[in-house]
Amino acid sequence: MQLGLVGLGRMGGNMRERLRAAGHEVVGYDRNADRSDVTSLAELAEKLDGPRAVWVMVPAGVTDTTIDAVAEVLSDGDIIIDGGNSRFSDDAPRAERLDTRGIGYLDVGVSGGVWGKENGYALMVGGAQEHVDRLMPIFEALKPAGEHGFVHAGPVGAGHYAKMVHNGIEYGLMHAYAEGYELLTKSELVTNVPGVFKSWREGTVVQSWLLDLLDRALDEDPDLSDLSGYTEDTGEGRWTVDEAIRLAVPLNVIAASLFARFTSRQEDSPAMKAVAALRQQFGGHAVHKR
Amino acid sequence: MQLGLVGLGRMGGNMRERLRAAGHEVVGYDRNADRSDVTSLAELAEKLDGPRAVWVMVPAGVTDTTIDAVAEVLSDGDIIIDGGNSRFSDDAPRAERLDTRGIGYLDVGVSGGVWGKENGYALMVGGAQEHVDRLMPIFEALKPAGEHGFVHAGPVGAGHYAKMVHNGIEYGLMHAYAEGYELLTKSELVTNVPGVFKSWREGTVVQSWLLDLLDRALDEDPDLSDLSGYTEDTGEGRWTVDEAIRLAVPLNVIAASLFARFTSRQEDSPAMKAVAALRQQFGGHAVHKR
Amino acid sequence: MQLGLVGLGRMGGNMRERLRAAGHEVVGYDRNADRSDVTSLAELAEKLDGPRAVWVMVPAGVTDTTIDAVAEVLSDGDIIIDGGNSRFSDDAPRAERLDTRGIGYLDVGVSGGVWGKENGYALMVGGAQEHVDRLMPIFEALKPAGEHGFVHAGPVGAGHYAKMVHNGIEYGLMHAYAEGYELLTKSELVTNVPGVFKSWREGTVVQSWLLDLLDRALDEDPDLSDLSGYTEDTGEGRWTVDEAIRLAVPLNVIAASLFARFTSRQEDSPAMKAVAALRQQFGGHAVHKR
Amino acid sequence: MQLGLVGLGRMGGNMRERLRAAGHEVVGYDRNADRSDVTSLAELAEKLDGPRAVWVMVPAGVTDTTIDAVAEVLSDGDIIIDGGNSRFSDDAPRAERLDTRGIGYLDVGVSGGVWGKENGYALMVGGAQEHVDRLMPIFEALKPAGEHGFVHAGPVGAGHYAKMVHNGIEYGLMHAYAEGYELLTKSELVTNVPGVFKSWREGTVVQSWLLDLLDRALDEDPDLSDLSGYTEDTGEGRWTVDEAIRLAVPLNVIAASLFARFTSRQEDSPAMKAVAALRQQFGGHAVHKR
Repeated sequence: MQLGLVGLGRMGGNMRERLRAAGHEVVGYDRNADRSDVTSLAELAEKLDGPRAVWVMVPAGVTDTTIDAVAEVLSDGDIIIDGGNSRFSDDAPRAERLDTRGIGYLDVGVSGGVWGKENGYALMVGGAQEHVDRLMPIFEALKPAGEHGFVHAGPVGAGHYAKMVHNGIEYGLMHAYAEGYELLTKSELVTNVPGVFKSWREGTVVQSWLLDLLDRALDEDPDLSDLSGYTEDTGEGRWTVDEAIRLAVPLNVIAASLFARFTSRQEDSPAMKAVAALRQQFGGHAVHKR
Repeated sequence: MQLGLVGLGRMGGNMRERLRAAGHEVVGYDRNADRSDVTSLAELAEKLDGPRAVWVMVPAGVTDTTIDAVAEVLSDGDIIIDGGNSRFSDDAPRAERLDTRGIGYLDVGVSGGVWGKENGYALMVGGAQEHVDRLMPIFEALKPAGEHGFVHAGPVGAGHYAKMVHNGIEYGLMHAYAEGYELLTKSELVTNVPGVFKSWREGTVVQSWLLDLLDRALDEDPDLSDLSGYTEDTGEGRWTVDEAIRLAVPLNVIAASLFARFTSRQEDSPAMKAVAALRQQFGGHAVHKR
Repeated sequence: MQLGLVGLGRMGGNMRERLRAAGHEVVGYDRNADRSDVTSLAELAEKLDGPRAVWVMVPAGVTDTTIDAVAEVLSDGDIIIDGGNSRFSDDAPRAERLDTRGIGYLDVGVSGGVWGKENGYALMVGGAQEHVDRLMPIFEALKPAGEHGFVHAGPVGAGHYAKMVHNGIEYGLMHAYAEGYELLTKSELVTNVPGVFKSWREGTVVQSWLLDLLDRALDEDPDLSDLSGYTEDTGEGRWTVDEAIRLAVPLNVIAASLFARFTSRQEDSPAMKAVAALRQQFGGHAVHKR
Repeated sequence: MQLGLVGLGRMGGNMRERLRAAGHEVVGYDRNADRSDVTSLAELAEKLDGPRAVWVMVPAGVTDTTIDAVAEVLSDGDIIIDGGNSRFSDDAPRAERLDTRGIGYLDVGVSGGVWGKENGYALMVGGAQEHVDRLMPIFEALKPAGEHGFVHAGPVGAGHYAKMVHNGIEYGLMHAYAEGYELLTKSELVTNVPGVFKSWREGTVVQSWLLDLLDRALDEDPDLSDLSGYTEDTGEGRWTVDEAIRLAVPLNVIAASLFARFTSRQEDSPAMKAVAALRQQFGGHAVHKR
């Protein structure tokens, strides 16, 4: 089927290729003319037969303005799909805004990173059943080949919600391996830390894709000496904890994983300075001056 | 090769079968005569040609007395392998005790649960290279068919150490999924929680064997309504945190997972009673009487 | 000086008394006629000479509508003070709204609970210096007698911000004592738990007003057997963690205290059901059926 | 009454002064001849009339050897008091060892730091009632002047146990203030952070001696710029968490406080390197090279 695709960066560009390889007709638009199939959104709209479907794949900061610009060139009966990293709470207002123009809206959480082009993208979709049905050929082409990797999670917002929780879980999983890694590296007994991780890839309870990747990283750099522990976090991790707080869900593990990333970016900790100050005051404990 | 196997419970019994299927000659002993191949440890020792290897697979509480009893019937040059859930710090004293008799010692962390008989057992081994070499045919038969699932992690103690950390990581992984599960069940947006978990099995960052198992559990009982949240913990989880404290390794995620199990077994929390008492005292906040 | 006071519940009523005892002329309004000095906000405004100051002390849910109603009866040059538990982020929009009418705005975080009428209320104030100066006589009357208990924390919003962090810290402090309490109650060695807490009230690092209150609670009910651990939380605790996430501040202790309250209100934990399900799947571990 | 006092460092030296000021006859011994009243433990024993009481106040590492040396010069009916930072689990073996010689044993947790000489030392005592009774004059002289600051917490071990939990709570309290401090320093709204802490010293729920000390530290160095966040931890904090794990008590807040100290001493975090490695592997996320 035909699909408009707005945003042809690393993710969007790879998705265009995967969709075309599956036989779909993709008209891509990007501000960068080198990647773009058309020179404007208007031209993109013209090249698609109605009812049109346009997938927006742009950075979170410009999603709303992009969607509004796309809506300008679409008409009643068309559908816009947001496959970016939007906060789920932005979806319903957006869908209502589009609905006044008769334009449908689907939110799609997309997982897969740099591996998706080859292996397929896991898709978590929110929106009306009729809109999902209309886009199924596209979803089928993007998703992995197996029986999993796609879910219609609920109404508008549910797709980004599911993706948000996915990323929250990912924070916790990564940190669990990371804590085990640190403990092993500190042990006086275990002399073959990379070998331990490699061995776990089969027959154990902790086998996973993340473990495979950690093994891969340790193959390249056995003591991770080339890396710094400075680690960014993304919106999804923060939103997950915020949402848990709203719903009174105790989220100790995921919150601790998020906080550890915050700490990793601090040169020195104001909180620990306060602890050091207190220790100095009541105990005359030696402190480290700067 | 020949192997003595002491302890033929669920794990030991399955291992005997897997070893025999691989062509090894296993002489099993169990206090339960129905399962046992011999009537005494002495008979077990007699049936094996020297130098002998005897694998002990008994509950943690009786490991030392069992090993000492086995040592009584062995001689200089033999090897004892402990495949049970011993604390790593018990291994070195045990090895020294055996060494005075000329008996070698290997500690093996075994993962695989009820799936091991079929899929193979992941093995983490601690001990001297020569002892490991001697037992390699046995390890080869027990481990999974692929290229992973076995590691010689270091000297005596390193096998149980690696297994301990494996289990600590497992606590964190399980709890990360569990927190995501709880958040999804509380969401007003996601209407298909089991479907979301199922979809994640392909193409996502969170795909793992544990995720497959959670999907399996949700297939059987979509809202887990048959289960209580009361959850036991085992020695390995506690030892992992204790060891991290000894080595000054921050283990927030794994500790939080362990503490959540403690909490799950409390009818009411003394700590939260104290919080309630404080709130009542300073704020006149309404409290819940028992 | 003259002060209009809107909201004469437990807090507002006590504050009226404390202010009058200090010689101030308070005109109080409450929807409950029994408590009210006037029959309407219009009458309240009439009874005050300009420039007027009106302190709003109502539940968080009705603060904005109350302030807007008060603004209707005030004029250019008057000041509204919000002493309720507003979220700090509501203050700036509110101040801007009032500013268009020439009405000033101060936000005041008030601490003191049921003890404030006697001991004075700690006040954390946000707003312009000139507005603070105008209200100083009122602040002086409300605050405790000593040299502390009052701060002009910054511009509009800073008062509620400081109060929010105060409450976040309070969560952590209470939970630290609570954890210690639980550990002592579980100890086989310590036979006099209330005595230990009482002894700490002097000469120790942990002496505090909260400790005094815990001792008081244990005097009344030595094993807290009359209480349930079910514990509410308030907006400030949640806002503190949300704000920390916004600012990338690791807040492990306060977040854990908040999560413990969430857990205390759960009959059973969906997360722990998921953990139990996983344990059952991979290990054949016995689980507790409901 | 007479008391032998072994160990005249900062704590022991100050205690000798406080005891003498209260009219007691203290015979002090220290390896450092400048501080010592006698030249040997034998001389110390000679100078005391029987039944003797000897208080040992030495660093944790040398407590057992010191106590054994003291026991050599004592006789049946004498008492040894350990006022150092021993682990509670060392007390019972020690008491049994001394009991074979007819020597009694008390364990005393001592709080007070550099402030104790002036304000008195809080004492948490474990041991037999008759031994406690015998030492009461000494305890009365050491403790603060008020009605609190002393408890007979239970049998041998209970004194150090109570002190251990005291220190665990202290970790949590300090970290709660510290997190609030960090959040306030990051706020764009609060322009007077030291003023906020100072104001809290009266009328608030968070008033405490620790808060007074933090205010004192901020008076000396308003942004704590002279301090590093590098913070040591002591045995008691680690023992508290270990003991909680043994007793299955969830100790999230105190454990998080302890872990934060571990983190504060790391140049870089191996765990966060592993997280960074994973992010790089699956997402092609930019990482910070060393």
